[in-house]
Formats: sequence, structure tokens, C-alpha cells
Amino acid sequence: MQNILRKITEHKLFINISTTIILLYSVVLGIKTFETVAVPYESVLVGLDFVISIYFVVEITLRMLSYKRIWQFFRDGWNVFDFVIVAVTMIPIGHTEFAMVMRVLRVFRILRLITIRPQLKELIDVLIKAIPAFLDILMLLFIIFYIYAIIGVSLFRETPSGLWDTFAHAMLTLFRVFTLEDWTDVMYETMDIISPWSWIYFVSFLVIAAFVFFNLFVAVLVEEISAYRQQKMQDVIDEEHKHITEMEKTIARLEHKIDQLLDEKQQR
Amino acid sequence: MQNILRKITEHKLFINISTTIILLYSVVLGIKTFETVAVPYESVLVGLDFVISIYFVVEITLRMLSYKRIWQFFRDGWNVFDFVIVAVTMIPIGHTEFAMVMRVLRVFRILRLITIRPQLKELIDVLIKAIPAFLDILMLLFIIFYIYAIIGVSLFRETPSGLWDTFAHAMLTLFRVFTLEDWTDVMYETMDIISPWSWIYFVSFLVIAAFVFFNLFVAVLVEEISAYRQQKMQDVIDEEHKHITEMEKTIARLEHKIDQLLDEKQQR
Amino acid sequence: MQNILRKITEHKLFINISTTIILLYSVVLGIKTFETVAVPYESVLVGLDFVISIYFVVEITLRMLSYKRIWQFFRDGWNVFDFVIVAVTMIPIGHTEFAMVMRVLRVFRILRLITIRPQLKELIDVLIKAIPAFLDILMLLFIIFYIYAIIGVSLFRETPSGLWDTFAHAMLTLFRVFTLEDWTDVMYETMDIISPWSWIYFVSFLVIAAFVFFNLFVAVLVEEISAYRQQKMQDVIDEEHKHITEMEKTIARLEHKIDQLLDEKQQR
Amino acid sequence: MQNILRKITEHKLFINISTTIILLYSVVLGIKTFETVAVPYESVLVGLDFVISIYFVVEITLRMLSYKRIWQFFRDGWNVFDFVIVAVTMIPIGHTEFAMVMRVLRVFRILRLITIRPQLKELIDVLIKAIPAFLDILMLLFIIFYIYAIIGVSLFRETPSGLWDTFAHAMLTLFRVFTLEDWTDVMYETMDIISPWSWIYFVSFLVIAAFVFFNLFVAVLVEEISAYRQQKMQDVIDEEHKHITEMEKTIARLEHKIDQLLDEKQQR
Repeated sequence: MQNILRKITEHKLFINISTTIILLYSVVLGIKTFETVAVPYESVLVGLDFVISIYFVVEITLRMLSYKRIWQFFRDGWNVFDFVIVAVTMIPIGHTEFAMVMRVLRVFRILRLITIRPQLKELIDVLIKAIPAFLDILMLLFIIFYIYAIIGVSLFRETPSGLWDTFAHAMLTLFRVFTLEDWTDVMYETMDIISPWSWIYFVSFLVIAAFVFFNLFVAVLVEEISAYRQQKMQDVIDEEHKHITEMEKTIARLEHKIDQLLDEKQQR
Repeated sequence: MQNILRKITEHKLFINISTTIILLYSVVLGIKTFETVAVPYESVLVGLDFVISIYFVVEITLRMLSYKRIWQFFRDGWNVFDFVIVAVTMIPIGHTEFAMVMRVLRVFRILRLITIRPQLKELIDVLIKAIPAFLDILMLLFIIFYIYAIIGVSLFRETPSGLWDTFAHAMLTLFRVFTLEDWTDVMYETMDIISPWSWIYFVSFLVIAAFVFFNLFVAVLVEEISAYRQQKMQDVIDEEHKHITEMEKTIARLEHKIDQLLDEKQQR
Repeated sequence: MQNILRKITEHKLFINISTTIILLYSVVLGIKTFETVAVPYESVLVGLDFVISIYFVVEITLRMLSYKRIWQFFRDGWNVFDFVIVAVTMIPIGHTEFAMVMRVLRVFRILRLITIRPQLKELIDVLIKAIPAFLDILMLLFIIFYIYAIIGVSLFRETPSGLWDTFAHAMLTLFRVFTLEDWTDVMYETMDIISPWSWIYFVSFLVIAAFVFFNLFVAVLVEEISAYRQQKMQDVIDEEHKHITEMEKTIARLEHKIDQLLDEKQQR
Repeated sequence: MQNILRKITEHKLFINISTTIILLYSVVLGIKTFETVAVPYESVLVGLDFVISIYFVVEITLRMLSYKRIWQFFRDGWNVFDFVIVAVTMIPIGHTEFAMVMRVLRVFRILRLITIRPQLKELIDVLIKAIPAFLDILMLLFIIFYIYAIIGVSLFRETPSGLWDTFAHAMLTLFRVFTLEDWTDVMYETMDIISPWSWIYFVSFLVIAAFVFFNLFVAVLVEEISAYRQQKMQDVIDEEHKHITEMEKTIARLEHKIDQLLDEKQQR
């Protein structure tokens, strides 16, 4: 019984139908945002909402039943993720003040695409595993941002644009400069009002941050390529090793036998 | 007969002449857009158009005849591609309302450069093969864009710039933010009108999208480098394997012969 | 005694406590920049400043005592770095004109995060080692910038924006163009005022600089990947070499013994 | 005699002195652009110009004499490059209309840095060798630009900004869009005046061009990494091969000798 249910929920057809339904629903949610459409077809949208809600409940129930005990279902983080999405988006939309929040929450149903398609699930797992490799360099970038922000507030606090009036604003401004977005506008203002030498602050920040970021990129790339290769190489090496070990044994046996020949001869 | 025709159409000289003719034609089409030039030299341009049309028809006819049966010609996708371009750009330009469309279609003749130069054809094949590796991450990027667009419409619909008034506009605006193009203009507007905390929306979007895109890049690169290497490595390994297998056989033969020596001795 | 002190200062708990204290202090320094907060809680901030100052002095004293002789402590560049930071940020903030400078210097205490966390220390070492690989290409980029700057000043000196009035301004403008920041604004000005052909200056600069920079990237990446691999490969090769050398010796021994067998026979 | 001259011109000290002189001269040329400095110190600058001119002539004469026959000197492209720079920048600056051109030509003396420092010379050689790998993809990018430019002129010719009025302007505008520089300004104009659907033109252009460029990058990187590795690997493989071939010979000899033993036995 559980096996049959599992086979159904992991069947390719089931996955493709689910994908289609979710994409359809996403399109409807997108259309909903056009005011002119939203009002007349209100009833159609409500109907579709109802259909997809039922489909989601049935699908998750089937999958829960495919486990022997229900608590086993919740041992997989992705199942918890699915359950929360279905549960939260089942709360009926009233006409209270929470209506808008509830409507936005509906959007997260598109996240079910990830749990339905195994390739996407795998991809997310890879992305999550990649985070630790970034953490140290991100900490370094944070230190650079932090120091420049504090200095920036001290130096440029009085610029009329208000880009440097608090530490939080300075951090946001530095993030903007880091993305190279109109960074010269920020610089020219400080060069005009504070000091013509303030270009040193911006150019040094860009050069240092770019250098660190660039090396982050190279480091991650080298790490990933090597990890991938390491594993492939290991198979090849293990294979070759087996052959060489075999040969060593055979040669040792040969030596032993020749020793016997020599022994016999010397005895005679 | 067919062989001679094929040799002609695949000859280096033939390829270079064709390339030159197409590039010349492209230059003429480019000059045509200068109003001042287009009017007086109209007749020159019409003449060149006529010459290149005839050249294209002759060239494709020769290539069709180089096949035993004409339907074999259409089995190669690139030949179909060529045929459609030649056929479509042969329709005479009238003075009707379609005249402009027909003139623009003429531009696609430059695409013949791809089918004439084998290296470009190969390159396109490589590019097309690279698409599947991108699909899953593009789907993930789409999900991120989608969720942010729906939230964006809900939060920022009332901004006067109209960047967030429909789902379609929000998607376009997010694409703009993704390319870092004046994204702070978009952000500052929402910070002024909606909430000073709306920077969280933009910074989180940029960080998440950049992280996913960055990993897409690394993944594709690792995949390609490994695929390329794998193949080269395999040759080396196969070569070495052959030697080692040969040695194993020789050593086994040696053991067999020494066994014979030992046997004889023991029999004595 | 020294050993115990060293074990304490290198203990994981000690590192984590230090990290927490520094991060806390950084947050306080950040909050300090909000005018409204800074005034009423002045005394709280002064108190925290006092506590962290004492902590820093105790921590560095402990680490200095963990060395047999104090001058050994200063042999490690990182220790000198720590000592300078602690010493400089210990100078009391008066109400003189240097007060602001002193306050900004306090910021550098966050740099202690680097020396406290070994992973960050390692990362910085890697970054510093990466610099020489960049130097030659940076020199080449400088030559390109230099020549374009001199030409730029000669050609565009009279533009009203003042972007090209001195060599220094031209270098800054070229850096801006290099980051693609509103580079068309710079170009369109020169196209309107100086010559419609001045786009050649900008497009050629961008193409050449991008090509050099792109190759810098590829070169560094190839170098790093190879260096990393080389080392891993070497281990594998050394291992295999050992086996093969061993086999060669055994086979040589075998040959010697068989020679003995043959000799004996021939003597008979 | 020639050997001594060559040793002098390739000596490290000679290289460093030349580098210093050229850098000094570059600084002077840079200062020259500040109007206020240029006038009073005119005579100083003229003097330095004179000194460096003589130095350049002496240096190149020494290097020419270091060859047995002068025409051998011109066989190396870099020497021709040096000779042209020295010759051209030796023409005296008159007060005619060519004065400015001559002054700008002086700038190219900084290019001598490349020929004086061997590492930079090598780097340039690497860069030049990298060009062919880029050519095919650049041709593809050109085709994409070309088609989009012709379509752009047809569709957007009437926009008041004049960005699309001729083929040349459309190519420049597309290059601007390709660098993501204020591309939404261009797009919004066409969306307002021509058609709200013109975003398709821009987004498709960016996606296609970015995809092609991205793959160009990956292809070049893979090629370079593999070429570099190939060479290193080859050494390792050759080394291993030598050992294995040696072993095969020894084993073959062993077999031959054992055959002799067996033969003798059977004869008896």
C-alpha cells in the first residue's frame, strides 16, 4: 500500500501534472495583478484558488500516507517545507486587514516547484552546501564595509544628499558603490563639498573590495573544480592501483618460485 | 558529378568568396540606412540586391544538386535554415505596407555567414548544447523573480513612476535591477514613498539573485572543464592501460613457464 | 607557564568570546553615529569603551607573556599589527581637535577580528600572496590608462564638465569609464563639443582595457587552479612512482637470479 | 665586442635605470598638463625632454651595435617597434599646427616600458596569441549586433534622442546597451514613443548577447586551462612512460632467458 502510493507520487507523469498545475496557478496569480482583469473575473480566480488548494491538500496527504508512520514524513526538511507552505496558504482570505498579507503568502506556492522537481531540489542542496565556502570572505568584506562606513559617516556626514547621515545609510551607500551604481554621483558630491581628495576614499574602496571579491571567486572556483576532479581522479587511480598491486603480488610469487629453483640447484 | 559539386561548394576559395559577398552586402545594407545616401544611390543598391539574390539562388541550387536526392538535402537542419533564408529574402519588395518588413527580412542574409563558415557552425552547435545545463538554474531564477515581482506589486503598486503597477512591469523592473541599471533610483523612490525599510527588498533580491547566478556560472564552468578533461584524460589512461594489461599478460606467461621449470625439477 | 598561557589564548572558547566582544563593540560604534542615540547614552558608550580597552590590554599582555622573551612576540607581523591597534586606540579621546581622528581610529579595533580568527588570517595571507601575480598586468593597465589620459587631456581639455582639465582628472574619468559608470554621458559630451568621431576613443579604450582585464582574470585563474592541482597530483604521482620503482628493483633482482640459473647451467 | 654590448643592454641594472627614467619622464609629461605648472617650468620640461631624447638614441644605438649586422636588429618585431617610437618622438616640436600632435606622440615613449621589461613583453605575446580564440565568437557577436542594429534603425528611427537615426548610431547605442550603461533610458524612450512591446527587443538582445559572451568566456577559460595542464601532464606521462617501457624491455628479456632455461631442459 505505502509502496504503491510512493510510486504514484514519484511517477514522472505525477511530477509533470503537478508542475503544470503550479505554473498555471502562477500565471493566474500574475494576471490577478492587472486591475482591469482582477475585478470582472474575480469569481474565476476564486474558483481556481479553490481547485488548487484541494489539489495541494490531496497531494500532501497522499505523500504523508506513503510513509509508515506520519512522524517519519516530517524527518525530511523538504517535507516540512511543503507542509508549512500548504498549511499557511490554506488559511482562508477574509476581508480583514490581513487579506493582503494572505494574498502575498499565496505566492509561495510557486516554491512547491522546487520540491516537486528533483533536479531543482538537488540544485538547492548544492547551493546551500556552497554557503560555508563564502562565509569567511563575506566576513572580510563586512569588515571592509564596516570600516569604510564609519570613516564615511565621520567625513561626509554633512553632505546634503543624506547618503552618509547615519551608519545604516553609509552601509547602504557603500553597497551601492560596490555595485558600481552611479558611484561617481556620490563621489563628485563629496569632492565638491568636503574635499577634492575624497576620490581616494572611493577609488581605494572599489579597488580593495573588487580585489577581495575577485579572489573569493577564484578561490571558490578552484575549490569546486578540484573537489569535482578529485573524486573522478580517485576512481581512475584506484583502478590503476588495483592493477599495480596485482602485478606486485604476481612478481613476488615469481621471485619466490625462482628462489626455489635456485635453492634446489644449490642443494645439488 | 555530385562529388565534383560538393568539392566546389566546400572549397576554401568558394567559402571565402561567399563570405566576402555577404559582408559586402551587409555594408551596403548598413549604408542604406543613411537617408542622404539611400535616395541618390537607390539604383546602385537595387542592382546589388539583384546580384546577391541571383548568387544566393545559384549557390543553394549547386548545393542541392550535390546531393543524390533532393530530400536528403533537407535532412540537415542547417540546409533547411539556408533554404528558408534564401526563399524568404527572394520575395520581391513592393511598395505596399509590407515593404519595410521585407527590407528588414533581407538582414537575415547575414546569418548565411554562419552556415558558410564551418567554425561558426560548430560554435553554434556548442552553444545550443550548452542550453540544457542552464535550464534548471534559469527556472530557479524565474521562481525568485516571480516571487519578488508579486511581492513588489503588492508593496509598491502606488509609486508614481509606474514601475510596479502590473506584474509584467514588475518583472521588467526586476530585470533592470538584476542588471544593476540605476537600481538605486528605483529603491530610493520606494524608500521615500512606501517605507524606509524597503531597501531590504532590493538588497536581499540582489544578494540572492547574484549568489544563484554566481553558482550557475561556477557549475557550468566546472562541468565544461571536467567534460573536456575527462575525454583527454581517457585517452592517456587507455594508452597506459594497454601497456599495463600487456605487462600483466607477459608476467602471467613468465609465471607459467617458471611453473613448468619447477614441475620438471620436481618430477625428476 | 608560557604553555598554559598559549593554550588559553589559542583556545576555541577564548577566540569566540573575543569575536563576540569585538562584534558587540562594532555595533555600539555603529549606533554611536545616530545623533539621537549618541547624546543621551553617552555615558553607556564611554563605559563600554573603557571595558573593551581593558579587555584588549589584558588579552595582548597575556599573549605577550606566553612568549619566553618579549621581543619574540614582535617577530610575527600579525602580533605587531595587534600591538599597534591596541596601542593607538588606547590614547584617550580628549575634547581637542584630534577628538574626531581618535574616534575614527577606534574603528580599526574591528580589524582584530582578523587576527583572532585563524581562518581570516590565512585568507589574508592568501590574498597577499596573490598580489604579485597581478602586478605585471596592472602595470600594463597603467600604461593603457596613462596613454589614454594624456591623449584625453589633449583632445577634450575644453569640455565644460571639467572631466578632462588635468591629467589627474583624466585618470579619474578613465577609471570611471572603466567601471562603465555613466560612460556614455562622458562620451556624448565629447561627441557634441569636440568631434562626432570621439566615440572611437571611448570604445577602443573599453575594448582594449576589457580584453587585458579579461586575460588577467583567465591567467590568474589558470595559475591558481594549476598550482593547487600540481600539488595534489604530485602526491598521487609520488605514490605511484614509489610502487613502480619498487617493481623495477624486484624485476632487476629476478633477472639477476635467472642469470645465476643460466650461468650455472652453462658451466655444467 | 657585440657580446659585451648585449650583456650591458640586457643587464638588470640597465633595465631598472631605463624603467626609472621612463617613469620619471611619464610623471613630467603628466605634470605638464597642469596649465599653472606648464608655463613657468617650461624650460625645465624642455631640458628633461632633451635628456631623455639623447638617452633613447644612445640606448637604441647600443642595442643596434650589439647585432653583427644592422639588418638582423630589424628582424625582431619588438626592435622595429622600439625604433619607430624613438624615431617618431625625435622629430622636434615646432610652433606650427603639428605641435600638439607631436606632443601627444611623445606619450608613446611610455610604451618602451614594455620592451624594456621582459615580463611585460612576454605578457603581450600571450595576449596576442589569445586573440584568435576570440575571433569566431566576436564574429558571432558582430552578426548579433548587426541584425539588431538594422532592426533597431527600422523600428526606432524616429525617436527624438537620435540614438537610432543611422546604422552607425544604432551600433554605438547597442554597444552602450551591451555594457548595461543606462540601457533602460534607451528602452523606456522607445516604449513611450514607438510601442510598449519594444522591451522585447532590448531584453532579448541582452539575454542573447550575454549568453554568447558568457560562453565565449567559458570556452576561452577551458581552452587555456587545458592547454596549460596538457603540457604539465605530458611531462609526467612521458616520465612514467619511460619507466613502463623500461620495465617492458626487462620483462621481455626475462622471458627470453627463461625460454632459454626451458629449451635447454627440453633438449636434455
